[in-house]
Amino acid sequence: MSAQTATTLLKSRWILPLSPGSSVLNDHTLVMQGDRIAAILPWAQAEAQYPAAERVDLGQHVLIPGLINGHTHSAMSLLRGVADDVPLMDWLNNHIWPLEKKWVSDDWTYQGSLLSAAEALRGGVTYLNDMYFFPAAMARAALDSGIRAGVSINVIDFPTGYAANAAEYIAKGLEAYEQFKGESLLDWTSAPHAPYTVSDETFVQLRELAERLDIQMHCHIHETDFEVSESLKQHGMRPLARLNKLGVLNERMMAVHMVHLTDEEIALLARQKVHLVHNPNSNMKLASGVCPVTALEAAGVNTILGTDGAASNNRQDMLGEIRAAALLAKGVTQNSTTVSARTALEMATIRAAKAMGRGHDLGSLEVGKLADVVAISLDALECRPVYNPEAQLVYVAGREHVSDVWVGGRRVLKDRQLTSIDQGALLGRVEHIVGQMKAGM
Amino acid sequence: MSAQTATTLLKSRWILPLSPGSSVLNDHTLVMQGDRIAAILPWAQAEAQYPAAERVDLGQHVLIPGLINGHTHSAMSLLRGVADDVPLMDWLNNHIWPLEKKWVSDDWTYQGSLLSAAEALRGGVTYLNDMYFFPAAMARAALDSGIRAGVSINVIDFPTGYAANAAEYIAKGLEAYEQFKGESLLDWTSAPHAPYTVSDETFVQLRELAERLDIQMHCHIHETDFEVSESLKQHGMRPLARLNKLGVLNERMMAVHMVHLTDEEIALLARQKVHLVHNPNSNMKLASGVCPVTALEAAGVNTILGTDGAASNNRQDMLGEIRAAALLAKGVTQNSTTVSARTALEMATIRAAKAMGRGHDLGSLEVGKLADVVAISLDALECRPVYNPEAQLVYVAGREHVSDVWVGGRRVLKDRQLTSIDQGALLGRVEHIVGQMKAGM
Repeated sequence: MSAQTATTLLKSRWILPLSPGSSVLNDHTLVMQGDRIAAILPWAQAEAQYPAAERVDLGQHVLIPGLINGHTHSAMSLLRGVADDVPLMDWLNNHIWPLEKKWVSDDWTYQGSLLSAAEALRGGVTYLNDMYFFPAAMARAALDSGIRAGVSINVIDFPTGYAANAAEYIAKGLEAYEQFKGESLLDWTSAPHAPYTVSDETFVQLRELAERLDIQMHCHIHETDFEVSESLKQHGMRPLARLNKLGVLNERMMAVHMVHLTDEEIALLARQKVHLVHNPNSNMKLASGVCPVTALEAAGVNTILGTDGAASNNRQDMLGEIRAAALLAKGVTQNSTTVSARTALEMATIRAAKAMGRGHDLGSLEVGKLADVVAISLDALECRPVYNPEAQLVYVAGREHVSDVWVGGRRVLKDRQLTSIDQGALLGRVEHIVGQMKAGM
Repeated sequence: MSAQTATTLLKSRWILPLSPGSSVLNDHTLVMQGDRIAAILPWAQAEAQYPAAERVDLGQHVLIPGLINGHTHSAMSLLRGVADDVPLMDWLNNHIWPLEKKWVSDDWTYQGSLLSAAEALRGGVTYLNDMYFFPAAMARAALDSGIRAGVSINVIDFPTGYAANAAEYIAKGLEAYEQFKGESLLDWTSAPHAPYTVSDETFVQLRELAERLDIQMHCHIHETDFEVSESLKQHGMRPLARLNKLGVLNERMMAVHMVHLTDEEIALLARQKVHLVHNPNSNMKLASGVCPVTALEAAGVNTILGTDGAASNNRQDMLGEIRAAALLAKGVTQNSTTVSARTALEMATIRAAKAMGRGHDLGSLEVGKLADVVAISLDALECRPVYNPEAQLVYVAGREHVSDVWVGGRRVLKDRQLTSIDQGALLGRVEHIVGQMKAGM
């Protein structure tokens, strides 16, 4: 039997498939064959049916589908904590953009992305939807770490250390796309940075690119009041109205942040089947405001979750975002039943897979889907007792309780140790880069 | 040299004393003698001055004062996750109170309190301000675990499994107080449960008790809209106005939650020097709303932080509350400079010590104060790189990075292992109790 079709049994106290209508399975075994889920069976039945399979006995664990981080800037892990407690525009103009202009390179992007991939895997994340410069570096970091990634063909309509203008951004993005075409761990997005940094012509070009390559789009929209008021001044309309006019609001669009929304805009998003990426901790930290998730849920918008980059949300912790999404919505609406534990988990799994156009083979533990599986231990003192494992994952467990992670059947985290990355060597390279940056500050 | 006066050097990469005006100390050593802090010195100077002392080399750690949880119901760890995503009054009336009525006993309270003490110590908390029935059980749990506690002489003006009426609650509380008087780990509070569960007469009695014993008061106030509107119906005034009339709003009062406040009420709190205990995650989870911390800061109210019990905030995680306080205030005010990392840390340390009447000997790392010290490692991949250790503690570190904890110079957590509690035996007793409760559900 080749490695490709090896059979492995993951025996677990609980399994949360998160497929539609599914509930918690007690004392079940997930059967992996090659890179796919072959079966989910009661313990005894799995033993009887697969006597020769490799076994992983997970004890008091919950198995869930790999978490999907719907929005991040992976390389910015190198800027984690470089400027906190400052306003967004000060943060961008006086801290982040000057540092990026000075330092960002292909290697810088690769090392930062690998650090984020390592953090992601150790936190149960099997898919990073990234937006950054030097997409080939992100692609290499994903392949080297074994994580899935949405890699961006991104454009910000001003010159950076990466490219001089939209044509160059697109050309470089396409070059990376061609280089890595066919890699099964990678998806690609057509990624205009934001309405306030991208022209009408570029939006149209990137829409056409998305259609031609049949990929999703990825864009920051309505993050701040300032963005909305500037658009009213410059374009005579709010950013969403402008984007609608440009034809980019449709089911290809992953619209990130969306903090400031009118009822009419929420109805428009629902009608156009736009996917919304909610970043609760980043929006709080940068004081952007609070995305109206409860209203979006009522309208039927597919809302998923992201961390944003480590410079604005210093923890790249999707279990933390899931908890924050469930708590924050309740606090601001004074409705304790909104964004239940189950809903929050779906926002980081099956709903996110759909937003990436991967609902058919990712996002839930179902026979035939890819085996992106995360094992979380509820054995720690902090996680005891357990009345309801689903709610326990959201309201109690932390990313430190993630013990094992498989991506497409490959065990990339084993008893909290990364199998694909030399952690010591990576941290050495990170400290070297950061030392140079600090010396220049 | 006796154990009482043994000298121990804690050598650490960073020390955050959190005393007024202090900033981060690099490459310093904290010197403990007996139960007190004797000195904080640069590495070489400490080595020269105390050549014979015991040494603990902490590497890439930050030392901070022990965290103070300003409000919890420790025993309710046994109800962690028993009912999530339900409204507060449903949660109280149909889940929590019936379960408490059926199960709460001295032993139940002891085991649950010991579980919370263990969770607290593993998360860097050295002081729990508790409110619950069977205070002697909480007192024993604190002494057995080596954590400090504020133990409540509590009254809820209806019959429970613990007491039949106010007189019996007070008598039982005083009995526990007399039993444990003089224990240096314990403080006591006079604790009316809430305006909606305690009569005017009882409030006055408990005020007099606090004055007579010279202790703080501890009360839930203005947690929900419902509480405020019911008070208007029954008493013709808002709860705070009623409490003010009863003479309990003063610097002895630790007012918990305080979600619903007018500008006049905020001014009243400042004038009366009331201490406010903000529980951001509990208030979000129970959909009570969001305490106006930014306005309270502007008015000069001493705001501190608490977790609330594990049934309403399933993580008893003060680092998590510190982060939530810093993030939530920014999100709801759209002001990214409010509740800075430093302010949030002070809310869980020096400010909380002042609220408990212990500002003179707890809450900061200063020579002469008690040696309640927490070591947090910033060495993990998730915590790298480090630009600013103060912000890193708040926005990045998790309680899992707490490695060592000293309470009054006693090392109660060593390399993440509890030294005072047999964890396996405790969890066995917890599972036994919870098994009985589940069987009865």
